[in-house]
Formats: sequence, structure tokens, C-alpha cells
Amino acid sequence: MQRPHFPLYYADYLQLDHLLSSQSPKSVEYGHPAHDEMLFIIVHQAYELWFKQILHELDSVVAIFQRDYVEEKAVGIAVARLHRIAEIQKVIVEQLRILETMTPLDFLEFRDWLTPASGFQSFQFRLIENKLGLKPEWRKAYDKNAYYSRLSPAHQEMIQRAEHEPSLFQLVERWLERTPFLDFQGFNFWTSYRAAVTKMLESDRGIIQTNPTLSNEERDAQLHELSQTEQSFAALFDEEKHNQLVKKGQRRLSYRATHAALLINLYRDEPILHLPFRLLTVLIDIDELLTAWRYRHALMVQRMIGSKIGTGGSSGYHYLRTTIESHKIFADLSNLSTFLIPRSALPELPSDFEKNLGFYYDQKPMSNG
Amino acid sequence: MQRPHFPLYYADYLQLDHLLSSQSPKSVEYGHPAHDEMLFIIVHQAYELWFKQILHELDSVVAIFQRDYVEEKAVGIAVARLHRIAEIQKVIVEQLRILETMTPLDFLEFRDWLTPASGFQSFQFRLIENKLGLKPEWRKAYDKNAYYSRLSPAHQEMIQRAEHEPSLFQLVERWLERTPFLDFQGFNFWTSYRAAVTKMLESDRGIIQTNPTLSNEERDAQLHELSQTEQSFAALFDEEKHNQLVKKGQRRLSYRATHAALLINLYRDEPILHLPFRLLTVLIDIDELLTAWRYRHALMVQRMIGSKIGTGGSSGYHYLRTTIESHKIFADLSNLSTFLIPRSALPELPSDFEKNLGFYYDQKPMSNG
Amino acid sequence: MQRPHFPLYYADYLQLDHLLSSQSPKSVEYGHPAHDEMLFIIVHQAYELWFKQILHELDSVVAIFQRDYVEEKAVGIAVARLHRIAEIQKVIVEQLRILETMTPLDFLEFRDWLTPASGFQSFQFRLIENKLGLKPEWRKAYDKNAYYSRLSPAHQEMIQRAEHEPSLFQLVERWLERTPFLDFQGFNFWTSYRAAVTKMLESDRGIIQTNPTLSNEERDAQLHELSQTEQSFAALFDEEKHNQLVKKGQRRLSYRATHAALLINLYRDEPILHLPFRLLTVLIDIDELLTAWRYRHALMVQRMIGSKIGTGGSSGYHYLRTTIESHKIFADLSNLSTFLIPRSALPELPSDFEKNLGFYYDQKPMSNG
Amino acid sequence: MQRPHFPLYYADYLQLDHLLSSQSPKSVEYGHPAHDEMLFIIVHQAYELWFKQILHELDSVVAIFQRDYVEEKAVGIAVARLHRIAEIQKVIVEQLRILETMTPLDFLEFRDWLTPASGFQSFQFRLIENKLGLKPEWRKAYDKNAYYSRLSPAHQEMIQRAEHEPSLFQLVERWLERTPFLDFQGFNFWTSYRAAVTKMLESDRGIIQTNPTLSNEERDAQLHELSQTEQSFAALFDEEKHNQLVKKGQRRLSYRATHAALLINLYRDEPILHLPFRLLTVLIDIDELLTAWRYRHALMVQRMIGSKIGTGGSSGYHYLRTTIESHKIFADLSNLSTFLIPRSALPELPSDFEKNLGFYYDQKPMSNG
Repeated sequence: MQRPHFPLYYADYLQLDHLLSSQSPKSVEYGHPAHDEMLFIIVHQAYELWFKQILHELDSVVAIFQRDYVEEKAVGIAVARLHRIAEIQKVIVEQLRILETMTPLDFLEFRDWLTPASGFQSFQFRLIENKLGLKPEWRKAYDKNAYYSRLSPAHQEMIQRAEHEPSLFQLVERWLERTPFLDFQGFNFWTSYRAAVTKMLESDRGIIQTNPTLSNEERDAQLHELSQTEQSFAALFDEEKHNQLVKKGQRRLSYRATHAALLINLYRDEPILHLPFRLLTVLIDIDELLTAWRYRHALMVQRMIGSKIGTGGSSGYHYLRTTIESHKIFADLSNLSTFLIPRSALPELPSDFEKNLGFYYDQKPMSNG
Repeated sequence: MQRPHFPLYYADYLQLDHLLSSQSPKSVEYGHPAHDEMLFIIVHQAYELWFKQILHELDSVVAIFQRDYVEEKAVGIAVARLHRIAEIQKVIVEQLRILETMTPLDFLEFRDWLTPASGFQSFQFRLIENKLGLKPEWRKAYDKNAYYSRLSPAHQEMIQRAEHEPSLFQLVERWLERTPFLDFQGFNFWTSYRAAVTKMLESDRGIIQTNPTLSNEERDAQLHELSQTEQSFAALFDEEKHNQLVKKGQRRLSYRATHAALLINLYRDEPILHLPFRLLTVLIDIDELLTAWRYRHALMVQRMIGSKIGTGGSSGYHYLRTTIESHKIFADLSNLSTFLIPRSALPELPSDFEKNLGFYYDQKPMSNG
Repeated sequence: MQRPHFPLYYADYLQLDHLLSSQSPKSVEYGHPAHDEMLFIIVHQAYELWFKQILHELDSVVAIFQRDYVEEKAVGIAVARLHRIAEIQKVIVEQLRILETMTPLDFLEFRDWLTPASGFQSFQFRLIENKLGLKPEWRKAYDKNAYYSRLSPAHQEMIQRAEHEPSLFQLVERWLERTPFLDFQGFNFWTSYRAAVTKMLESDRGIIQTNPTLSNEERDAQLHELSQTEQSFAALFDEEKHNQLVKKGQRRLSYRATHAALLINLYRDEPILHLPFRLLTVLIDIDELLTAWRYRHALMVQRMIGSKIGTGGSSGYHYLRTTIESHKIFADLSNLSTFLIPRSALPELPSDFEKNLGFYYDQKPMSNG
Repeated sequence: MQRPHFPLYYADYLQLDHLLSSQSPKSVEYGHPAHDEMLFIIVHQAYELWFKQILHELDSVVAIFQRDYVEEKAVGIAVARLHRIAEIQKVIVEQLRILETMTPLDFLEFRDWLTPASGFQSFQFRLIENKLGLKPEWRKAYDKNAYYSRLSPAHQEMIQRAEHEPSLFQLVERWLERTPFLDFQGFNFWTSYRAAVTKMLESDRGIIQTNPTLSNEERDAQLHELSQTEQSFAALFDEEKHNQLVKKGQRRLSYRATHAALLINLYRDEPILHLPFRLLTVLIDIDELLTAWRYRHALMVQRMIGSKIGTGGSSGYHYLRTTIESHKIFADLSNLSTFLIPRSALPELPSDFEKNLGFYYDQKPMSNG
């Protein structure tokens, strides 16, 4: 390990001369300095720095799952890095509070100079969406065109490339599909699980039908909802039905991957499933935090410009609102709760199977602890 | 001031014997102890304690605005107490993270014992909604019935009483309507404001029409949106149009109160409008935090039970989602940003008028500072 | 599973009649109602509810580590519950913001009625400290007496019992001492680690001696500090020296447990050490959050009463400040970083040893992923 | 208002090409890429961006208080900008959580390449300290030298200039000293306040002497503390004693400014004192958040490097710990609570005096609200 010859200086290491000279308020340039434009610039630069970091982590996680064989240690590293992304997301949601100290009136002082630039044009944010797995066809009509056309050619190309590379969603799906424990030595998990499910749904129906506090109207509404839940379960046991839901856009995760994810959720107390479970959990966290960000951001925009158009001529609040739900990437994972049944109703694992879910060391008498 | 005779003991003062013996897990009672039910109980109890505190503050603020004359000091106290409510709301949003440490599987261990009890039945939460100003007719059809029928007669009565008492919304609206500065010594605010608005809208139209990055489709969408903004402004200058929007449920705040709120927003740098501006701001904060809570709560429910029905037989996630937007109470206040114009475009105040917005002391030579 | 016969009501389940009638402001009782006393009561009640929950989790974790053999699944459950404690701690730190909305002046309106009750008398907080492992002899002289004498006999007894039961600290220490991997098939970890350490310390000495930006004074100060670090390492390789540090109160964790904890930190990427590492991490988190709470609490007390005496006649801010550092329980764990060396300098594990740190399933060809 | 000729592009406006190319990990340069160095760089860059923003706000607030006459509107703007600084501080405290996702082992992979660069060399942070009012003589001996000698000549010069410009502390002190309300038309505030104080201290003494739960040892300790409080009060009524405390470094705020700050605290419900009170409050907030940041930062450093030396050869954790308390700038303001007395014991204001604290408009019959 060769050491540097010259002493390193903090400001040089961080390239502070670049960093701290990259703020050029337009209001100053046009001769009407607006104090708050500096905040506006710096908040957005802070966002872009964090986006770069998120991409750094995301790329490394994607690289891990692109391997044919993802060893345990690598999953551990992936989970840690995804967890870091979630921590960054928490901070960038909080960061909105700083921007909110700028009042709508203060914003108006320099808003016009920014036209038609817009946060809409953050190519790094688009890259994050694409690399996570947001498919172009999930975008709203308006967004679908705009999201290219507003970008510079270089950025358009980056975005398009990301659209065609395997996304984290696809890679995790493939990784789930390969789980060896779904068809293991004749383990009849699905039979006993199915029986437990049937019993639970019948019980739910009973609850609705005998709940004395419900009006007829409410009861009908709930029975309707229950029958939808029953259909969800039906699709869980019938690959064809599942594929139809995928076609209609009501499911995104493949049949086999859904099964694997459910197994991991149900048996996550087993040592070998600890990490896979944490992986699925952190993906849900990232999705939820992204959703929370979109939501808080839309609220902030409403507060800042009301129902005016955005600086980029974007439709502002109402447009942003439409993306919140539809842009959820791992919704099928958070929705897995629909299919959980109590631990007490879970089929017991055959002891030989369970052994395979434990540590090598523990299979000998007298182990750790 | 007579002092207590006996030394007060911390645990007695807080009635800890009551407080700490009020947790009776059903799973224990029915012989299948589930470790996490304690958390479930205590989280909800903590919520109800905070709801009690919110009601304590809310009642005192409502009492302040029920006076015929609300003096400055009292507005200051009201703002401080509403700010406290906002701080409580921030904590109860964060508190959801604690509940989220309970996994869906753990919840299933005792979920069935709770039927048909439901957070839906929190009468204190309903009281908060009603006292803030949520009108029964804004509730969704499903909610409208359910929100009474599931409660005990005593709680139903409390809720109904709150429905008929003047809400904070109504009282603040009345207080705004009484602002003396709207018709002050021939101040021609509205004329010059209207001219500035017209200029701004024309400029916005120009931006859309000349933005080279827009497709025709996008341009049409934005022009459509702009014409809606123009209609909003039209209603701001025409009482009849405004009242029609109110009738259709697209506005909630009266014509005169809307004008007063706008004036406060535009001239909030004037000393006498500082506190009124902070009042409007904290009401928006409370509304936003309530919305954030509903949203995070809905996400949490989805994660916990997927699309299953709730413990109270409520329709869970989907129902909760519908309440997020429609239950906003002070939406017209946050939407006021639509009508803001840059400070530089603001009509200057006549000096005699401005004097009336300042401090008595400052009208003499050599003042504070 | 026998179901309840009668419909359960939310308010009954949570015993809201008890809970919401347990607030009796003294200022009301004595005829001088102070609005903010309700907040004071409810904040403290919320704290005590959370303390009960923390104790619920802590007791269950202690029970797990009291077993002679702690299986992997149980460690997983312990980690999850300790993580829940950390989440509760985050909320109760934030909760201070709510109390801070009460100004010092408002507090003075009812402060005198509370004498001599004091947060000092929270027996649940004392229980938490004792069960985590705070030893009576670590308490300051003042605290040592006061912490009994101010409590009711019943609470004194609870506290004393907890002092004599095995604490989480002791149980984790014992669990660490039993780690089988320290003396495993002649694994010469300590030899190669020691060599790496020696090299690192020499490099640090070189950095100090050649750093051109240091004054002589600074250089001496740093060399002094380095020699202390060298002594820390010396104690790591010499049981007798370590035991002397324990006697002087400069170390709390036993020699063997320290070694085990270090091994877990250095090789935590190995599957079988994942959970042990997460356990050590969450214990540090809990300690840090407890410290953060003590610190924020002390700041709040200073802001509230300045340097006046506390309601219980406690010495307020200055006393609280003294407990922040000395009451850290797992300081030796956070201080382990002192002994870490880069992964690249880590001795490689013998392959047979490494196999024992992996999963049973993975020892066969073609495994998960 | 001349509009820009060419459409502005988001990435150009934010100078993203500069910003996103300013990360050059040393570990990459030296051929041993460490994944986490990117995080290390970006976290510190984000800090420096926020520091720039804090300086932008701080400079503008300093400029406001440098005026001979600070009008009400300007105080309002200053409060808003200081409040923004506080919001930024909250985020940068939270930001530490992101850095904490890097483990000590990961840090060791590139730590050696950074020598002797150190966060110690953040000249922007030093500027913030100096502009707020941290005096060179308050710095610890070690820090006092190091804080210049490690910086580049250009940065040294910036720091020294800031040391000699009037700080926010000095300007606010001067502004307080000019408050006209201290000697107003023979208002005998100090006489009645002094009487109330004497009564309160006697009551406190009684509490200690009759508290049955105190041991003799505790009682002595508390009486000792009480006599210190009495001396604090003595200095409040005797300018010479106050000046002695200032000389000894136990007080920083001048006698007259202390009185003004106390008056503002006691009568802050009066309209004209609203803003001054909010100013004092936000200064305390900034101080507390700075302290919280120092504390959390020190904890993080301990967790990261234990008691090793820092990358800049700085003494790490132990050094950082010493700065936490001594670097508080507005400690005298937070300590004012010592001198507060209950509102009910406050001397009533002469009505003519009170009129001067109200609004001009309100002096006429029938006012706002």
C-alpha cells in the first residue's frame, strides 16, 4: 500500500472550490437579487448529491444480483447498502422542511427566471426510478412523453439505457424464482397452507355476516371486498389466473417469485431465511419512503404554488399526485401480508427440511450460545 | 396560595397504578399469550393520551375564538397551542414506526381476538376531526354511517354534540370576515391586485405557448390547466361565482374570509399581521400533518394486513386511502398560494394605512432597535 | 381457539375510561387552574407507558439469555425486540419537543404544587437502568442514596430486586464468553491479529511524527494519546492487565467476552456471525439513545428551570449532566472500534473454520441464489 | 424585468456537471477502490453545501443587526432566516445517521489515504462559529492553535477576518442594550420583581429544609446549590458583581442586555415583544442544535474510531467532547430561566406603559378580531 507523498488538505479532497462556486442565482444575474434563490439552488444540489450516492449504491446492488450465484455474504452487503439508501431517503424527506421555510411569496421573487427549468428534469431521479424497476409503461401518459422530451440528448440516452438494463426489480424477481426451497424433497407446504387459508377466509366471512354493528349497506360492501380477497388467493394457487392479473397490470411479480417471497415471509425465523427476509423488507421500506417523498413533495408544491403551473410548465400538484401510487415498484411485496396466516396455523416443517435452513455448525451437538 | 399538606409522590401524581394496570391482552385472557399484543395496546393508549391532549388544546383555542373580540394576546396564545398540537402530531406520525416493528405475522397471533373492535371507533379522533371542522357531509358514504353506528351511545352523543358546536374552521372563518383592513379608508387594494394578476396570467400563457420543449399534447394539457386557474381567479373577484364553488364543494371558505386570508398572506410583513399570518400557517401545518398521518397510517395498514379486512370489519387500506384528501379541512388556506403575486408586483400601502398596521410606540420618533 | 362471545369495543379493550380519567392537575385541585399542567401530566404518562413497554421487551430478552442454550431463532427474536426498544427510544427523545412547547413561565404557574414529586422518582426508569445492567456502584454518590430514599417502600423493593437479578449486560457477557469460535481447532487468530495491530500502531506513530501541520505542543499531546491507545491494546493481549482495568472501573466487560465481541466485529460478514453482530450493534444503539435522551433531557431541564433546583428538590441540570457519560452501560462495545483493523489486514480464516460459520445447505453443491 | 433569451435547463442551472464530477475517491486513485469512500465524500460535501447556506443566512442577519435602527419588519426577516438555520441544523444532525451506515471496518479500508485531512479543517464551520460569536479565547488550548495552523493561508485569513468583525452575539447584545423599555416613565419593574424573587428564594429554601425525604447529605448539597442561585440573583441586581462574573468567564452577556432579555422573557405576551422573544428563542434553538450536533458527532466518532487518533491526527472523541459545553454561545439566554418568576407574581404594567407595547390600530375603539 503506497502512501500519498503530499499532505492531503480537507478542502482539496472535497473539491470545495468547485462545490462552493457552483451556485449562480439567476435573480442576481438579471439584476434583481432574491435572497432565497440561494436556498433553492442549494436544496436542489443537496438532492442531486444524494441521488448520486443512491445511484452508487444501487449500481453496486444491481451488480451483485446480476451474478449467477449470489452468495450469502453478498446478500448481506446488498441489504446493508439498500438500508443505506433508505436512510438517505429519510433525510431527503426531512430536507423538504428546509425548503418549506421559503414562503410562496419569496419563491415568486425569482420563479419566473427559472422557466422552463424544472425538477421534472432531474435525470438522476429518473435513473433511480428506472434502475429500481419503474417500467416506462407504468408512467402516466403525460409523464411518458415529457420524461424524455424535456431532457438533453445526453441525458435522454442515459435514461433509455437504464430502461433496457435489467432493473433491481427484475433481478430480485429472478433471484426469488431460483430459491431452492420451493420444491424441496416433497415438502407439501402448499397443500397445508391452502387448507389454512380456506379456513381463515371462512372465518372472515363469518365475522362480517354476524357483526351486529354493521348496516346492510356496510355488510354488502365488505362482502364485496372479501370476495376480491378470495380472488387474490385464487390467483395464488392458479398460475394462469396470476398471469392474467400480471397482464392487466394488477400484479407485477411472477408466479414463482411470489411463492418464494411468501415462503420467505412465513418461515423467516429460520436462519437461512433471515437475510432474504431482510432483503424483502428493505425493498418495501425503499418503496414506502419513495412514496412518502412523492407525497410530501406534492404537498409542498401545492403549498408553494397552489394550482399554478410549475416552473417547467409542468402541471404541478395534480400531476405529482397521480404518480404517488402508480409508481410503487415493489407493491406486490408489501401486499404479501394479504396472504399471511398465523404462525400457529403454519404447517410444521419436516425436520430434515428444517436442518437445511440452519447453520452447519449447529447440526453438531453443543453449539454456539 | 395554600400549599399541599402532604408530600406529593410522583407515582401518585401520575396515577401510575391506574395507568400501568390498564393493559389486559385478550390473547392472555383466552389462554394463548401473544407477546406483541402488549405493544399493540400501549401504542394505541399512547395515541389516545395524545388525542386527549390535542382536545385539551383545541377546546381552549375554540373558546378563544368564540369571544366577540379576540385580543392580540389571545391570538398569540392560540397560535402557541395550535403549534403544540402540530408538535404532538409530528410525534404520533413517528410513533407509527414503533408499531411497524410488529410484523404482520406477529399481528396475526392475536388479531382475531380483537374483532370487531377497531381504531375506527376512536371517538376522540372523531372529536378532533369534528372540532377542527370536518363536516359530516364531507365524509364518504361508507364512513358517514359507520362513524356513528359503531360507537357506543355515550360516544355517539359526544360526537354529535361536537358536530353541532361551532368548529375551529367556522370560528376562524368568522374571525377572518371581521378583519377591519379589507375596507379601509378607500384602500384600492383589489383594483391594483387584479391588474397584477391579469398580467401574471398572461405571462403564464406566454410561457406555455412558447416553451419549445412541449409537445402539442402537453401544451393543450397545460393550457387547459391554465384556464382552470383563470377560473379560480375569476371566482376571487366575483362573489357569486365563489358561492357557486362553495355550493359544489370546491371551496369551503367564505368569499370575505378568503379575501382576508389573502390580504394577510400578501402583507404579512406588517407587524399587526404577523400573528394572523402565523395562525393561518399553523392551521395549514395541522392539516398537512393530519393528512400525513392518514397517509402513513394507510400505508402501515396495507403492510400489516394487505388487502384483508380490518379488525373492525372495516375495509382497511382502500377505505383509509379515500379519506386522505377529502378530509382536509383548511385546504382553501394552503391553496391560497394560487393567488399570490410577487412582492414587487404588490400595490404599495398608503402611508396612513401602513401606520395602522404598526406599533403604537413606533409612531413616535426614535423607537426600539 | 374459543372466540369471545360478546363483541369487543375499542374503548373497553384499551380501558379508555381508566386511561382518560387519570389526569388530575394539582393546580385545578388547589383552585388555580394552569392550562399547561395537563400537558405536563400527559407527557409523563406517555413516558411511563413507553417505559412499561420497554420493560416488557427487556424482560423477555433477559429470559431468552437466561437459557443455557440460546438457539439462533431466539437470538433473532431478541434482536428484533431490542430493535423495538431502540425505536421507542427514538420517539421518546422526540417527545421532548412537545414538552418544550411549554415555556418556563408557563411551568412556573404550577411547579410549586408538585413539590417534592420528581421525575427522579420514576421507578420504571430505574428498573430499566438496572435490568440493562447499570450497577449501583456506577451511580454518583448523590444519586446512590437518593435513588432509593425518595421511592415508596414497594418501589424500593422492586428496584432492589432488579439489582440482584442477572442483568442484560451480565447475560450477554456470559453468552459472549461461551462463543465456541475463540478456541477453534488451533485457529491462530490472535497471533496474526496482534501482528497487524503492531503494524498499525507504528504507522499511526509515524503519521504523528511526520505531520508537518502539527505544532510541538500538539505532537506531544497526540503522542501521549497514542501511548494510551497502545496501553489499551496491551490490555487486550494480557488478561491480568485487562482485569486491572476492570478493577479500576475503566473496563466493564470480561477479558474473554471482549475477545468474543471483537471476533464478531471482525468476522461479521460470516453468516453465523450476522445475528451476533446485529445484537452487539443494537445494544450500542440502545446505549447511545439512552445517552442522547439523558443529554436532551438535561438541556430541556436547563432551559426550563435554569440553575434552579428541580421540583423534587433535585439539583436539576448539573446533576443530570453528571449521569450522561457514567451511566453508559455498553461503552466497552462501542469502544471496540479502537481495536478494529482493516479487512485487508485481517488474517484469512482456515477453510474448515469458515465452513463452520456458514449454512448447512450451502455446503452442498448448487445452493440458494 | 428582462426575461432570459434561451430556455434554462435544470442541469445547467444547478451546474450538475461540476457538482457531480467533484467526487474523486483517494482509494480509487491509489488503486484500492473502497466502495464506501464515495459516501464519505458525499456526506461531507452535503455538510459543506449546508454550511454555505447557513453562512448566507447568517451574513444577511448580521447585516440587519448592523444597522443603527432595526425596524420591526427586519427583525421579522431575521427571525425567519435564523429559523431556517435551525431547520438546516436539524437535517444535518439527522444526516449523521447516513454516515453511521458506514461501519468502522469499512472506514478502515480508506482511512489511511486521507491523512492528514480532517473535518477539523472545515473553514466554513469555523466561520459559522466565529460569526455566531464564539470568541477565540473560549476555545480550548489545543484547539486554539490547531484551528489556525491546520488551515491554508487563504482560509486562515477568512477565519481571522471573521474573528474581528462584529459577531451576531455582539450585535444582538447591542440591540438588547438599546431597548427603550428598561427605563420607561418611572416604571418600577425592578423593585417589584426583586421583591417577588426574594419571596421565591425563601420558599425554595423552605422546601429543602422541610423535605422529609432528603438525607442530611442531600440537604447540604441542595442548600449549597441554592446559595449559588442566590448569588446569581445578586449579580442580577448589582452591576459590579455581574461584571466580575463576566471577567471570570461565567457570564458573557452585558448587564444591560441581560436585563433587556429578561424583560422580554417576562412580558413576551405584549405584542411589541412577540418578535424580540421569538428572536431570543431561535438563538437558543440554534445554540442547542449546535450542541446536539457536536454531541452526536462526538458519539459517532467514538463509534467509528474508538479512542484512536482522527484522520487529521486530531485527538478524536475526547477532544470533541471538551468542545460541547464550552462552545455554547448564547448560554446566558437559555440560563435566563433561572430568573423567571410566575406570571402571577409579575408586577402589573402601568396602563400607559402597556399601551406603548400594543398596536397603533388597537388604541382605537373596535379593532381587529
